[in-house]
Amino acid sequence: MHINTILEERKAVIDTALRYFLPDETEYPSSIHRALHYSVFAGGKRIRPILALLTAELFSPDWEKVIPPACAMELIHTYSLIHDDLPAMDNDDYRRGRLTSHKVFGEALAVLAGDALLTLAFEILAGVKEKYNGYASSYWNDVTAEVKLKIIFEIAEAAGVNGMIGGQVVDLESEGKSITAETLDYIERHKTGALITASVRLGALISGAGRQDLSRLTKYADLLGSAFQIVDDLLDIEGDEEKMGKAKGMDAKNRKPTCVSLYGLDGAKKRREELYNLALKELDDFGDKADVLRELTRFILYRDY
Amino acid sequence: MHINTILEERKAVIDTALRYFLPDETEYPSSIHRALHYSVFAGGKRIRPILALLTAELFSPDWEKVIPPACAMELIHTYSLIHDDLPAMDNDDYRRGRLTSHKVFGEALAVLAGDALLTLAFEILAGVKEKYNGYASSYWNDVTAEVKLKIIFEIAEAAGVNGMIGGQVVDLESEGKSITAETLDYIERHKTGALITASVRLGALISGAGRQDLSRLTKYADLLGSAFQIVDDLLDIEGDEEKMGKAKGMDAKNRKPTCVSLYGLDGAKKRREELYNLALKELDDFGDKADVLRELTRFILYRDY
Repeated sequence: MHINTILEERKAVIDTALRYFLPDETEYPSSIHRALHYSVFAGGKRIRPILALLTAELFSPDWEKVIPPACAMELIHTYSLIHDDLPAMDNDDYRRGRLTSHKVFGEALAVLAGDALLTLAFEILAGVKEKYNGYASSYWNDVTAEVKLKIIFEIAEAAGVNGMIGGQVVDLESEGKSITAETLDYIERHKTGALITASVRLGALISGAGRQDLSRLTKYADLLGSAFQIVDDLLDIEGDEEKMGKAKGMDAKNRKPTCVSLYGLDGAKKRREELYNLALKELDDFGDKADVLRELTRFILYRDY
Repeated sequence: MHINTILEERKAVIDTALRYFLPDETEYPSSIHRALHYSVFAGGKRIRPILALLTAELFSPDWEKVIPPACAMELIHTYSLIHDDLPAMDNDDYRRGRLTSHKVFGEALAVLAGDALLTLAFEILAGVKEKYNGYASSYWNDVTAEVKLKIIFEIAEAAGVNGMIGGQVVDLESEGKSITAETLDYIERHKTGALITASVRLGALISGAGRQDLSRLTKYADLLGSAFQIVDDLLDIEGDEEKMGKAKGMDAKNRKPTCVSLYGLDGAKKRREELYNLALKELDDFGDKADVLRELTRFILYRDY
């Protein structure tokens, strides 16, 4: 099956689940609920949840169990975008071709919408049958409480000061400065890499991956995560503005040091290629089963939007 | 023992634990870690964690088990203050006699510091032995995974769009408007009440409270939570500016409808008294054991800072 078909199918699964987990747009107070729907259903590619699903499929056909935490990852990713776009942060007016949350709902509500999505992610992860009846009862409830706690812990670590937030801080503080390769590596691993790695690991953990497989997939995800940030940097220069729905050249405008500013365009592409090959290598032992994951990896790292 | 002594003792327990759970100020990237310490150790009274501890003591002498989730509540409370003080929200320059987070660290870091504290709260709640060795291994690890998940779920609900965040949204959107008694009730119950109720409930749940006791304490906490917001409104008019460390009259300045603007000063005080008496009534069946909780209730509702 073509990777685009698989991506579309899995995206549909995730979108359906997200509609289930998100409170209705008409709930009181409706402004915040509209803000949540606006950002969550803004045309995201759902790369993180799909990574979790495809990783789980390496080990078990019961990938439905992975839907709730995969959705939680997407909510955390979305919250980080809303806060990242704020005037005090990257000050972006457009994302995916639409006005950013604070441009539509105002800054106060954008801050609260981000807070709400982060909070909702953990509510879903701890979800009880009564609330998410239908989803949690048939899927998430099969997962033991111990595994759930481990996943909540890992996701919180990945999203926190030693993960994504740490990366955002260093990224912000590097603006207008020249940085070392070491600092760039920290940003790549944390700002983007941490959630990617957590997505892959939760898929593996829930599907009962053994220690060695988990270790291989963690290495795979770390490499993919670093390369992911490079792709973001490359897209800001060479991406398809129409497909991305946002202006290029923001990094240069914000004087952000990136892989491209440090190694040049060719150097950045070479680094992406290296990381791509190293990541694929970690999938070698999974044989044909990992073909879809290989294709997803290629899609993620060589997309033009 | 005098209530002030008990408050001081419990506050010391919580502060010690918070120092344990918070990553060191010198950790990389240090700016965000300094921002976390700045706000968490800003002289808060620790009312929410102390409520959790004293509720737990009604049922069991093992109140140490409640320390990790009690700390999580304080971190969530602190995150909400940081975001609440932002220019786009209440735009407060001072809190507890010190500059607010965004005045010291800038808006971007204040947004991220709030995000980080919310995330850290859930990390602690899901905490694994290896990380919080010493705390979690001796205390939190005694709690079953099922109870932990239930508590994570309840806290997430209390902090989310159907809890605190919902209250903040309605509060913000009521500025400059005249509101109904029903809307004021919603703000009181959600903006402040939700975290208060969650604090009391987690203390009871962890200590093995029965269904009837849990129901009574939930009612007690709901009444206390609503009254708590009234006290905040009264303090903004009659509080001790020096002790509070912030300017009075902000509600009037922001044209915020409060209990006072709706019912007048005497009406608000009467409402506090009514809620206080109703709350105490829910503690009747606990006998002498609840004396400390009764004193705490009086302290919370009749403080001048």
